[in-house]
Amino acid sequence: MKNKTSAPVDDQSMPLGLKRVAIDTYRENVAYLHRECELYRAEGFQALAKIEVRANGKRVLASLNVVDDTSIVDCQQLGLSEEAFAKLGVAEGHAVSVSQAEPPSSIPALHRKIAGERLSREDFAAIVRDISELRYSKIELTAFVVACNQGELDREEVFYLSDAMSRVGRKLDWHEHPVVDKHCIGGIPGNRTSMLVVPIVAAHGMLCPKTSSRAITSPAGTADTMEVMANVELPFDELNQLVRRHRGCLAWGGTSELSPADDVLIAVERPLNIDSPGQMVASIISKKVAAGSTHLLLDIPVGPHAKVRTMPEARRLRKLFEFVATRMGLVIEVVITDGRQPIGQGIGPVLEARDVMRVLQNHPDAPNDLRQKSLRLAGRMLEFNPDIRGGDGFGIARDILDSGRALEKMHDIIQAQGARPFDPDNPPLAPLMFEVTAPESGVVTGIDNLRMARIARLAGAPKAQGAGVDMLARLGDRVERGQPLYRVYAAYRTEQTFALQATERGTGFTIGQADDIKPLNVEF
Amino acid sequence: MKNKTSAPVDDQSMPLGLKRVAIDTYRENVAYLHRECELYRAEGFQALAKIEVRANGKRVLASLNVVDDTSIVDCQQLGLSEEAFAKLGVAEGHAVSVSQAEPPSSIPALHRKIAGERLSREDFAAIVRDISELRYSKIELTAFVVACNQGELDREEVFYLSDAMSRVGRKLDWHEHPVVDKHCIGGIPGNRTSMLVVPIVAAHGMLCPKTSSRAITSPAGTADTMEVMANVELPFDELNQLVRRHRGCLAWGGTSELSPADDVLIAVERPLNIDSPGQMVASIISKKVAAGSTHLLLDIPVGPHAKVRTMPEARRLRKLFEFVATRMGLVIEVVITDGRQPIGQGIGPVLEARDVMRVLQNHPDAPNDLRQKSLRLAGRMLEFNPDIRGGDGFGIARDILDSGRALEKMHDIIQAQGARPFDPDNPPLAPLMFEVTAPESGVVTGIDNLRMARIARLAGAPKAQGAGVDMLARLGDRVERGQPLYRVYAAYRTEQTFALQATERGTGFTIGQADDIKPLNVEF
Repeated sequence: MKNKTSAPVDDQSMPLGLKRVAIDTYRENVAYLHRECELYRAEGFQALAKIEVRANGKRVLASLNVVDDTSIVDCQQLGLSEEAFAKLGVAEGHAVSVSQAEPPSSIPALHRKIAGERLSREDFAAIVRDISELRYSKIELTAFVVACNQGELDREEVFYLSDAMSRVGRKLDWHEHPVVDKHCIGGIPGNRTSMLVVPIVAAHGMLCPKTSSRAITSPAGTADTMEVMANVELPFDELNQLVRRHRGCLAWGGTSELSPADDVLIAVERPLNIDSPGQMVASIISKKVAAGSTHLLLDIPVGPHAKVRTMPEARRLRKLFEFVATRMGLVIEVVITDGRQPIGQGIGPVLEARDVMRVLQNHPDAPNDLRQKSLRLAGRMLEFNPDIRGGDGFGIARDILDSGRALEKMHDIIQAQGARPFDPDNPPLAPLMFEVTAPESGVVTGIDNLRMARIARLAGAPKAQGAGVDMLARLGDRVERGQPLYRVYAAYRTEQTFALQATERGTGFTIGQADDIKPLNVEF
Repeated sequence: MKNKTSAPVDDQSMPLGLKRVAIDTYRENVAYLHRECELYRAEGFQALAKIEVRANGKRVLASLNVVDDTSIVDCQQLGLSEEAFAKLGVAEGHAVSVSQAEPPSSIPALHRKIAGERLSREDFAAIVRDISELRYSKIELTAFVVACNQGELDREEVFYLSDAMSRVGRKLDWHEHPVVDKHCIGGIPGNRTSMLVVPIVAAHGMLCPKTSSRAITSPAGTADTMEVMANVELPFDELNQLVRRHRGCLAWGGTSELSPADDVLIAVERPLNIDSPGQMVASIISKKVAAGSTHLLLDIPVGPHAKVRTMPEARRLRKLFEFVATRMGLVIEVVITDGRQPIGQGIGPVLEARDVMRVLQNHPDAPNDLRQKSLRLAGRMLEFNPDIRGGDGFGIARDILDSGRALEKMHDIIQAQGARPFDPDNPPLAPLMFEVTAPESGVVTGIDNLRMARIARLAGAPKAQGAGVDMLARLGDRVERGQPLYRVYAAYRTEQTFALQATERGTGFTIGQADDIKPLNVEF
């Protein structure tokens, strides 16, 4: 075939000078061009179109905002928002070239997923690569998350997604065996077992490079709670050395470049409050594999107000974790635990940090449920060591905790990550407090995890570290009318009001007869 | 239950002065606060959080950008991007108050839809209200679109959605009967029958307040093509008077406030290229009902490269249209037409405007397929008049066209909407042209609508009005090797290159034997 081309016109666009525009657009790269800029007019860009900005062999993708004020950018300049400017990494005034960003090559695969098709390994690899390179718009990211959520990925697809996600980031290799980690799928407020399990296991000498996450929809993640006492955002190499020296850490994985696609996806999943089985498994397994773990203990709490509500559902999820982990070469042990109520006493970063430190200190007020669950989990992890007999783990874990060796290890880790002043006997709680009391006498027969988490979040947790809920009664406790069930701490008046209104709509507690409490047979 | 509240703290935030920030963020409202602004620090806002800005009893919702440059906003100011500033409608310097935007009340319903549940009439009403009031973020909008797309709304749900969408905008009542309209579901390039049907029907005296749309994923919508010759963005009241006087119009519905939710949804559907049956039906029916139409002729083209590929699929879609329209009290007639190739000769606003005017002028080069299809559609519409015998419509329509009365009516409408200079004998085509020729001799046995549309879009249509594709051969034509199949017009070199590359990957034409052409039995 022959193509005749008439009247070619040369692109004679002048290079633009880079300007740093002091606007913080969060994760969204924004570029600013003046409306009268020759390039803007010639290229026929549209506001919010995605453009590619290049300088010095580097490039960033950004959404375009069109400016009519030369004090922001003039016609010879291209402006970049703070984070985009930092990413491009060249000085102000440097020449930059700009073009329409090509649509990501994986978009046809995205469309097939939206239409409900099954995707191939190559499709997932292409999508995850584009996502990790920030080539997807928010709209495309959301479409991917919702399409995967609704159609339910099959287990092969979850493996493809996990595998692709583990490959796009940096990957750690500890050059030893076993490298152990534990993870809980979440949903249970106050469940800070990692902060006890890691010091115990590391004190025993096992390598446990725990990646921790921040809260997505909960009032605190392990990283948020640890941050009360220590720095959790460490440079990659520093974290690496730290783990080798101390056998463990409690630091946030998000900045550690381990799973960049997961980080991007979470920015969409968070506001949508979406957490489908496939995405959950891919997110967790990909990060553990990238972190170089060889063994993983996974905790699935079950309860009427937990993420997983029934044993059959928990068993299905366990099988999905087992399938994907095994395909990825990760040894996994899944435990199904009692998720009928919050674990520990406090909900919120400071309150949970207090509980954790009290358990480590063998303090008389330490919450026993948190202690017991942590010891059982640590025991199971210790048994990943082939030299420890099945059933012996719990006793070893308890010795390490009771002897103060776990506390000592925690102090080492805190120091290594960068200690922040924190006194568990005098925790810096948020200043505005109110109590919620029992409306009638009886036995506590149910505690709604979701509602307790919501109250703590409305009160300001995790952003206000000292905000949250301090539980004063637990499942099976006998309470008298007017007796406080829990205290709510808030940092700001508006947040206090929101939390108060939420408790007025429902306390989260059910009071009834002792035999109303449904038994739960967990596999742990 | 009693709640004790300790240490209330009063909010003593200073009012901020409004500043117009000369940044065009397209449909996305953006607010700018300085990082050192007391309010920003006190409220603990996050960048990209949604905030509500109020002044004078009005309010806008906006995403927050945090600024570190006092020349953009200082600590006593709140900045708003251009469109948001216009929407709030108060002067610079006016005091504004700002708060965290509450999440839209329909979000729980959205989550149920994401999880695959069926929604109630009230759910759809709440969602559509929130969408039309711009309370949904892009992420939430996308989630709604994808969730409705994947699960496939059932027909009751499509009715609920259509009904809700028709209620949130302004609604026209013409106080006469019948009020007729026609609509094509799209997918066939060049298919500009509305621009012929409306003048014919209006010339006959029927009231035909045609709402037209801009291209979403196609190289031109009726509004884009009409815009070559006339203004299509008319104020609501002006459009209203115009239709009463001239019995018809060809103006864009988007700015006419008829279906504000549809406008918002399209901003998400467009980049995702999503067009599910349910959303299509709701979008079309809601707009027609809001526009006060009592009768609708709906065109579903079928072909291997049309939106609808098979007759069974077309019949299913017809039944959905019929069900929803009837529930909404709209008389509907659905025709299933031949969609195996583009209609008319040109693809792109200027080229299509040329074709339309040639048909109206009874020009010897007028494309006959466009003429014939338009006459048949107009005939069916005329038969909505109970006084016209079934089968007589076509003849009446042909008389109106042949006599020049349709052309005269078109001129009236163009003048009334605001004429733009356009000479169909000398159309302002884009300057860069190339031809695509037949690679071998034979008969044209297939033309890929999608590919032709894509080539025209890559060449710049509809943004560059003169860009597009001019077809020189049609289905069943005998062509010799080297004979031009079509011409491509582009306005810019880069766009020409994109279009050229696309034709090199595939011309969109299949050349073979005459009996390779599959027959198609349409219902028309």
